Amino acid sequence: MYQFIKNGSVTSTKGFKAAGIHCGVKEKSKKLDLALIYSAEPCTVVGTYTLNKVKAAPLLISRDTVKKSKYVKAVVVNSGNANACTGEEGYLDALDMQKKCAEGLNIRQHEVLIASTGVIGQKLPLNKIISGIDKIIPRLSIKGGIDAANAIMTTDLKVKSYALKVKLASGNVTIGAICKGSGMIMPNMATMLAFISTDAKISKSVLYDILLDSVKKSFNKISVDGDTSTNDMVILLANGASDILIEKNSRDYNLFKDALDVICIKMAKSIVSDGEGATKLITINVKHAKSEKEADIVAKSISNSPLVKTAFYGGDANWGRILSAAGQSGADIDPAKVSISFDKLPVLLPNYKLVIDEVKAAKILAKPEISVTIDLGNGLKESTWWMCDLSEDYVKINANYRT
Amino acid sequence: MYQFIKNGSVTSTKGFKAAGIHCGVKEKSKKLDLALIYSAEPCTVVGTYTLNKVKAAPLLISRDTVKKSKYVKAVVVNSGNANACTGEEGYLDALDMQKKCAEGLNIRQHEVLIASTGVIGQKLPLNKIISGIDKIIPRLSIKGGIDAANAIMTTDLKVKSYALKVKLASGNVTIGAICKGSGMIMPNMATMLAFISTDAKISKSVLYDILLDSVKKSFNKISVDGDTSTNDMVILLANGASDILIEKNSRDYNLFKDALDVICIKMAKSIVSDGEGATKLITINVKHAKSEKEADIVAKSISNSPLVKTAFYGGDANWGRILSAAGQSGADIDPAKVSISFDKLPVLLPNYKLVIDEVKAAKILAKPEISVTIDLGNGLKESTWWMCDLSEDYVKINANYRT
Repeated sequence: MYQFIKNGSVTSTKGFKAAGIHCGVKEKSKKLDLALIYSAEPCTVVGTYTLNKVKAAPLLISRDTVKKSKYVKAVVVNSGNANACTGEEGYLDALDMQKKCAEGLNIRQHEVLIASTGVIGQKLPLNKIISGIDKIIPRLSIKGGIDAANAIMTTDLKVKSYALKVKLASGNVTIGAICKGSGMIMPNMATMLAFISTDAKISKSVLYDILLDSVKKSFNKISVDGDTSTNDMVILLANGASDILIEKNSRDYNLFKDALDVICIKMAKSIVSDGEGATKLITINVKHAKSEKEADIVAKSISNSPLVKTAFYGGDANWGRILSAAGQSGADIDPAKVSISFDKLPVLLPNYKLVIDEVKAAKILAKPEISVTIDLGNGLKESTWWMCDLSEDYVKINANYRT
Repeated sequence: MYQFIKNGSVTSTKGFKAAGIHCGVKEKSKKLDLALIYSAEPCTVVGTYTLNKVKAAPLLISRDTVKKSKYVKAVVVNSGNANACTGEEGYLDALDMQKKCAEGLNIRQHEVLIASTGVIGQKLPLNKIISGIDKIIPRLSIKGGIDAANAIMTTDLKVKSYALKVKLASGNVTIGAICKGSGMIMPNMATMLAFISTDAKISKSVLYDILLDSVKKSFNKISVDGDTSTNDMVILLANGASDILIEKNSRDYNLFKDALDVICIKMAKSIVSDGEGATKLITINVKHAKSEKEADIVAKSISNSPLVKTAFYGGDANWGRILSAAGQSGADIDPAKVSISFDKLPVLLPNYKLVIDEVKAAKILAKPEISVTIDLGNGLKESTWWMCDLSEDYVKINANYRT
């Protein structure tokens, strides 16, 4: 049982404060570019990270900190500069960012996580961040979640901030979250940052299992452009402030897991529908696949196809491109067994039997949210992905923005 | 030793005739849409085909014909309709197209290859093709190569027609070729048709080895949008009219092979630089890779990245996206060892040492042809790919064209 909290955020969770300020990393605007999340109660913490071989310094440091620290208390994040591909100097800068934040909060360095997002390959303006940390600490508040959500944005147009009240058998807990990401989005943590807080009391190993499972169902099943970034991570912090203990395989465990799925899928979909230049959110349901892996391969190939994406942009019920994308996926499918429908409108039946009603299809394709079902007629497994369309604006944004 | 023939085509080769007409498959224009290539001398023939699981009927029939026939004499091709995803009916239509052409030319059905390119999933307008075949046969001529090249075009803007005079130890032979393809281009034969003629005398097995090797070095190393089509093939016809015999591993064999590489790379590059909406042709040289496969994986990932493509379109010397695309490729690279240069301008040295001269880089990036070298510092193997940029026009073309 869960319920979305209106204007919810990472600070909707008991014991969490946050803030967002402009410290000057974004030179050409007054947009917020530094975020801080803090819990006085020590937090159990787990994370998942980009699979790109090129990993940014802050990501390497945070991954290491999550691994070695029993607890953390803060996450400091800058936008506008990714501190990626910056070598030894960038690594030292990231360590200084972590150290400075710990000093300011009067906690230990290994209790601070750091993250950066923005332009690759430019030196981090460390002085701005150092003086920004001095400025942001006094601003920490339980109302600061939305400012923090604003401060981690790059090309995002919409603030992404959510919270869920979760009713468990043993009492209520909260899950709050902020995230960013709109281009360079692909499974396996592409230019995407998500910070999730909960006041449930959960051991590190249980927390990790739950997060990994939710991430697989949400952030790893979305595609804006098929690119994977150097910096991205999902961090889940549990400070135990609710005093509700969640143990493996209990009834509450399953309820909590469901709620975490809901908020992760909510975030994943918000990232796709705010994809660079996106005008439509398309849900891709692959059904009756031989295995879940095959379903994923087909859904991924469709979600990443520029021809499918541009067809959705043009409102073209181009089932041929969808079938062709399935065919080129590498999955072992028999195209003659495939059927395709848009929302509930059957378009193609097995043996290439075309039953499309072009007028009805065009109406569906004109909507901002579309659901496509590809039935492989090949087995019992399925997978759902979310993709956006590809518009001229994606090209404009990325031709002129140096990530 | 070889030399390009001015205005060369598939009919520059001794014994080949061709023609191209408008038969009405392209309903909304008077553009040519039916091509015929013919050699009275029987031709040894080999082909390579799309790896998409969804294969068009004409492709299945031609693949079968190439496999089973000792010789063929004709290739008939329509554009405007791909006869793909058309089921049993489409298969019978394709057989009729082959049969009609054989009857008209007074040859056997298994001496005719067929191909189609255009919209997927619509019934082939067989009557138009049948009456078109009656019209096109009397038009066959040694000047008809360019018309045939025109008649196989879909969204192509430029006619792609070439021929090479090849000096061998035992005399001269010719290689002529026409091809089409500008969207849905990816390694493994994406929406691409190429028909190559030669008057050399070569056995089928030798011809196949030579073609496969050339295709690997050319058509399989290009990317416009990462999509692979249902219809595409490269066909090589050898009618022996020169009486010059080429045997495996002879000196002439190597000379001929080099010339075939040259014409295939010429075609591959012409397809990329005529990519839908493309404004730039970019050569991607991956050097010092552990293996050729790893070099290919890195080059392919860079060539397919929408973020890299849009950066080239914007004239942005965005080495960070190139490095990130290499990092997400799945190849086992160490990003700290990588160096990158644009043309001869070093941009990034190992250990993330940035040496870019932004003014010089911007000048290089503004050119219509750019060469990028990614040195992995990891081994002794290399690979060269060709890609184009991604512009708003790609989106416009594909949002409104039903392939």
